[in-house]
Amino acid sequence: MSAKPSVVIDLKFSREAMDRALASAFQDREVIDLGNPDHADKDISEATYAILWKPGPTLFQKATSLQVLFSGGAGVDHVLTLPGLPNLPIVRFVDRSLTDRMSEWVVLNCLYHLRRMPQYLKQQREKLWHEIAMQPEAREVTVGVMGLGVLGLDAVRKLKVMGFNVIGWSRRKKEIEGIETFDEDHIDDFLARTDMLVGLLPLTNETRGLYDSSLFAKLKQGGALGKPVFLNAGRGGSQVETDVIAALEKGVLGAASLDVFEKEPLLIDSPLWTMENVVVTPHAAAESDVRALFAHVEAQIARFEAGKPLEHVVDRASGY
Amino acid sequence: MSAKPSVVIDLKFSREAMDRALASAFQDREVIDLGNPDHADKDISEATYAILWKPGPTLFQKATSLQVLFSGGAGVDHVLTLPGLPNLPIVRFVDRSLTDRMSEWVVLNCLYHLRRMPQYLKQQREKLWHEIAMQPEAREVTVGVMGLGVLGLDAVRKLKVMGFNVIGWSRRKKEIEGIETFDEDHIDDFLARTDMLVGLLPLTNETRGLYDSSLFAKLKQGGALGKPVFLNAGRGGSQVETDVIAALEKGVLGAASLDVFEKEPLLIDSPLWTMENVVVTPHAAAESDVRALFAHVEAQIARFEAGKPLEHVVDRASGY
Repeated sequence: MSAKPSVVIDLKFSREAMDRALASAFQDREVIDLGNPDHADKDISEATYAILWKPGPTLFQKATSLQVLFSGGAGVDHVLTLPGLPNLPIVRFVDRSLTDRMSEWVVLNCLYHLRRMPQYLKQQREKLWHEIAMQPEAREVTVGVMGLGVLGLDAVRKLKVMGFNVIGWSRRKKEIEGIETFDEDHIDDFLARTDMLVGLLPLTNETRGLYDSSLFAKLKQGGALGKPVFLNAGRGGSQVETDVIAALEKGVLGAASLDVFEKEPLLIDSPLWTMENVVVTPHAAAESDVRALFAHVEAQIARFEAGKPLEHVVDRASGY
Repeated sequence: MSAKPSVVIDLKFSREAMDRALASAFQDREVIDLGNPDHADKDISEATYAILWKPGPTLFQKATSLQVLFSGGAGVDHVLTLPGLPNLPIVRFVDRSLTDRMSEWVVLNCLYHLRRMPQYLKQQREKLWHEIAMQPEAREVTVGVMGLGVLGLDAVRKLKVMGFNVIGWSRRKKEIEGIETFDEDHIDDFLARTDMLVGLLPLTNETRGLYDSSLFAKLKQGGALGKPVFLNAGRGGSQVETDVIAALEKGVLGAASLDVFEKEPLLIDSPLWTMENVVVTPHAAAESDVRALFAHVEAQIARFEAGKPLEHVVDRASGY
């Protein structure tokens, strides 16, 4: 066994992605990967670091020497609600790769609805050559980004480069150069200006069920796209899915792109799968790069073992 | 009749878009809009300016006082090949709006293929919750942009902000800060590096039929996306469509997004309509904003009438 402190991993990534990532990660220390059947009986009582995504219920009973917990995703709600969670620092997954991938998803889906792709793809299936009359350009559309952390800030910057008019909202007021921002006291003003709402909020007591009928009713109607569009790549728990569906059915919302859901996988009988103008992706916006996660964990372990403070430590009081 | 020189218009935009745009354009001079049935019998012999997109065959016989021709699109091949084309300056449509809209289409379609949207939308139709294993991020993918004029340069810049590795090609070598560029002597080196080929070339004798089997065979195979992707928003005449189809069928190309075609509208029996991983849009990437076209023409007319030189005048020798 290596002399360096060991790592226990309980993640829900695909076996293939895990094996590929582990082939070049943590070369200098023991790794116990609970998703690997060969490791199932290994003793984890000596493990110093844990990398977690919705871990098994007995992990903290067995891993009694842990010093740092690493979240396997940007969100940490799945860690904070674990029974028997020890009072240890929890490091959020903040990473260039994760940030870039989230912005890819956000910009892709904003452009997708801006450029009427649901209609154009439908026309393509019907072999119909027809230019859609109402085709505003990005600068005619205001994208309102909720959540101005690392992910939100990067999305704001890239949406602006693509020409969108961008505004931002966060619970506590943030100043961002060149972007109009709003705080919790001014959410109605923010929503009234928003043609496309992009949700990048963490799941906390304050954000649970936030995206509901009353919020959708406050979004701007009659903008360049006609009806508002709702995108959520934050947490499914922040949306009331029956309200999303009702808003789409009633035309309060014109379209939606959802990467997260109240219950994942999305239930087979959800109408969202087949609704017109709705994109469903399987919580794949920004969490697939296990290699980047391990590189981030390695960097933080190096800091920790060199006596430097950990970065991106979760504030348990605010929940993110 | 207004004292100011008049404008004759022969464009193929929708009536609705034309009426909306003309409501606020050319307020100070007469406009004869040949697409308007009420104008069909009007005398155009005195018209000084013509705004054209594939105009009728008798236009130049009737409009004998023209001094400047304005192309209704970014390309001018449809003007240069007109029978009886008078020896007058031809002004290309260069415009912030057109440029922005073209980059919207390019970035949207690059992200669409990067993020496996054809597969995710297919999975959605099948109500399948499944994260695709091979999901590279933008920086692992090299986008090669062919054509480095106003449109190409803007697309290059925005693709780079989105994280793509971007390289550029133009017939004559162009220096672009931070971007590796290639010229006609080094096209094979350029193609060998390219995972996603973006065509933004004008149609000239040199570019006609350029995108053919032999070119596709030189694109990079086995990159982060597995197979190369072909996007064309330049001119349909630059692509050999039977070769595009064959390359997709044989797996030389993995996917394509096409906004332009050899014959438009795309023929109803083209296999492209229904091929997997192919996006067909009806020449709608960047030519729909008639308002922007008229604003551009008004600006150039103002220069012309003030005795200043016209901008964006076509070089007839090079064909663009």
